[in-house]
Amino acid sequence: MNLTRRDFTKFSTLALAAQFGQQLTPELLAQTSGRKVGYCIIGLGRIADHFMRGTLDTNNSKVTALVSGHPDKAAQIAEKYGVPKSSIYNYENMDAIRDNKSVDAVYVALPNSMHAEYTIRSAKAGKHVLCEKPMAVSVAEAQSMIEACKSANVKLMIAYRCHYETTNLRAVKLIRDGAIGQVQSIQSAFGFNCGPNEWRLDKPLAGGGPLMDVGIYCLNATRYLTGEEPAEISAYAFSNPLDPRFKTVEENVSWVTKFPSGVVASCNTTYGAQMDGYFHVYGSKGWIDVNPAFVYDGLRLTAQIATPDNPYVTLDEPNSEKDPIHFSKEADHFSNCILHNLEPKTPGEEGLQDMKYIRDIYRSAGIAKS
Amino acid sequence: MNLTRRDFTKFSTLALAAQFGQQLTPELLAQTSGRKVGYCIIGLGRIADHFMRGTLDTNNSKVTALVSGHPDKAAQIAEKYGVPKSSIYNYENMDAIRDNKSVDAVYVALPNSMHAEYTIRSAKAGKHVLCEKPMAVSVAEAQSMIEACKSANVKLMIAYRCHYETTNLRAVKLIRDGAIGQVQSIQSAFGFNCGPNEWRLDKPLAGGGPLMDVGIYCLNATRYLTGEEPAEISAYAFSNPLDPRFKTVEENVSWVTKFPSGVVASCNTTYGAQMDGYFHVYGSKGWIDVNPAFVYDGLRLTAQIATPDNPYVTLDEPNSEKDPIHFSKEADHFSNCILHNLEPKTPGEEGLQDMKYIRDIYRSAGIAKS
Repeated sequence: MNLTRRDFTKFSTLALAAQFGQQLTPELLAQTSGRKVGYCIIGLGRIADHFMRGTLDTNNSKVTALVSGHPDKAAQIAEKYGVPKSSIYNYENMDAIRDNKSVDAVYVALPNSMHAEYTIRSAKAGKHVLCEKPMAVSVAEAQSMIEACKSANVKLMIAYRCHYETTNLRAVKLIRDGAIGQVQSIQSAFGFNCGPNEWRLDKPLAGGGPLMDVGIYCLNATRYLTGEEPAEISAYAFSNPLDPRFKTVEENVSWVTKFPSGVVASCNTTYGAQMDGYFHVYGSKGWIDVNPAFVYDGLRLTAQIATPDNPYVTLDEPNSEKDPIHFSKEADHFSNCILHNLEPKTPGEEGLQDMKYIRDIYRSAGIAKS
Repeated sequence: MNLTRRDFTKFSTLALAAQFGQQLTPELLAQTSGRKVGYCIIGLGRIADHFMRGTLDTNNSKVTALVSGHPDKAAQIAEKYGVPKSSIYNYENMDAIRDNKSVDAVYVALPNSMHAEYTIRSAKAGKHVLCEKPMAVSVAEAQSMIEACKSANVKLMIAYRCHYETTNLRAVKLIRDGAIGQVQSIQSAFGFNCGPNEWRLDKPLAGGGPLMDVGIYCLNATRYLTGEEPAEISAYAFSNPLDPRFKTVEENVSWVTKFPSGVVASCNTTYGAQMDGYFHVYGSKGWIDVNPAFVYDGLRLTAQIATPDNPYVTLDEPNSEKDPIHFSKEADHFSNCILHNLEPKTPGEEGLQDMKYIRDIYRSAGIAKS
């Protein structure tokens, strides 16, 4: 069977429900294979720390190389993870990972504007790529990343944690199983009060403000909860002109989306207020609230669902899994794809879709976006 | 200084007045006047029952006449409230309230499309008008109601319960006092799964769907929480074409609003799902969640606020007041305005504003609205 790219996109979108329905649990590879996928970590910031700790709880993933501009920091981390000095790179010489047999894949955990460059360089070095979200800072960049990985015949997965996380998957399964009837309406929000010295506030590095960083969780959630792609988006944004944090990126964004089935969703994101990430899904037979929904642990699902026996069953399901469990599951999934030549659940095309909707939201809000 | 409990209530809520308008506190007239304002209740449905029971807990309001198309029902209610048979009217002869000295005001609790007619007829009969929300089914109707009351020199108040209700006022006061810093973003939702035989589903009676009926709470809340008028609104709506309930009114609406200060808000309403009414206000120094926010009792405010001593104070304030307390406060306020010739906090102009924004939301969502 020959699939064109368009077919593939269609196929992967259609398969979304099936993927969520059938492969809810990352399979633990220890059961089938002794080999571990070696990851080169590119960028040693906070999220990389979560990911590296996450690999320790898998049986198929390990940290085997590092890329950093800070040799001392890299040396410390190398010692912790048993990475030999010869596998510590900087941003200039990292292309030499090509010759490092211990490196199967990279984990790109850099500021957003560097995702494309380091994904493409890694692909050219013959390494599979797990790239943090947002995938890039523009649609064109996202497309070039997909092309580069395809040309190099390496896998590209975008690190959408929530697609691999128990409580989010539970919500999706309840919806697909019809437990709340027909989904009518979704609300979601995620944001935080951003400190003044973050790279996130620098558009050349971040590509945009809270929408790209945390609003993307709400956007992506409305897609995986419905299993649909937005048909229309409308948005407003605002930045306090007196707040020096928001000279280049926006402070607040609100948007509404309409999906082809008719589901309507409204979302908020901010860098100017504490906004615990959550989503609320309203269906014809019940509702699901996941709050918090997007942080690293402590997630909780409450719901009122209908079963064949009882139309008003209440659920309260706190998730006791601890950080870095999301990262363990994410690493496990990608390593499994690499070891068994499977397509990741959240490939580059998934990230590209969000980049398109982010562009549409910025345009609707009057913030030009390439 | 000796404060009675009633004095204390007055005292503590008077402080809100400056914030929310001028007169947040229903003053309890027993202290200043023995006279009770007599209300003619027009329409004897569910909300009228709440209102009539509400008058019993005031010292300045009483039910003195009824208008109904159901003589038996009217007779039963008349007995309960001590209304003489001579003060029971039907929709044809109700203009005779003009000659009924026991009637100072009317309470219009009819389906939405009848608000304008009965407000105007009551004004022409020389009676003050307390009209349920939505004020009318069009901007033009709302304007004609304001004109009619002005010409007749009677007061017109729209029954926005939440403007007179403790927990909503508490949220407003916290915001005005700066307890959550600069408001950035608001989310609100309110809806329910509407039974199949409600007049609400009949556009000629209702004028519209959940937006007019319950979405108006979210819309109005974004206005009283910010103290601003929307600068821009964008919306989507959807009705399931296979659901016979939604032949004439919409099922779901989501909208986003931008306020002049930059506050962005997103709201959802529905007749197709249970959607507990709430609002969440995100500020630069904290947040306020009122959930439920719009039902008759059991309201609860939780918040994280900043005080001069502590930037992270958490509040959890369940409201133990019982239905029909909102209606008592509402009646008390309007009666006070009548007895002391004051302007109601929620005059016709307040209702007119919402009618304009409802029109804008329907237009943006592609639902024509006069």
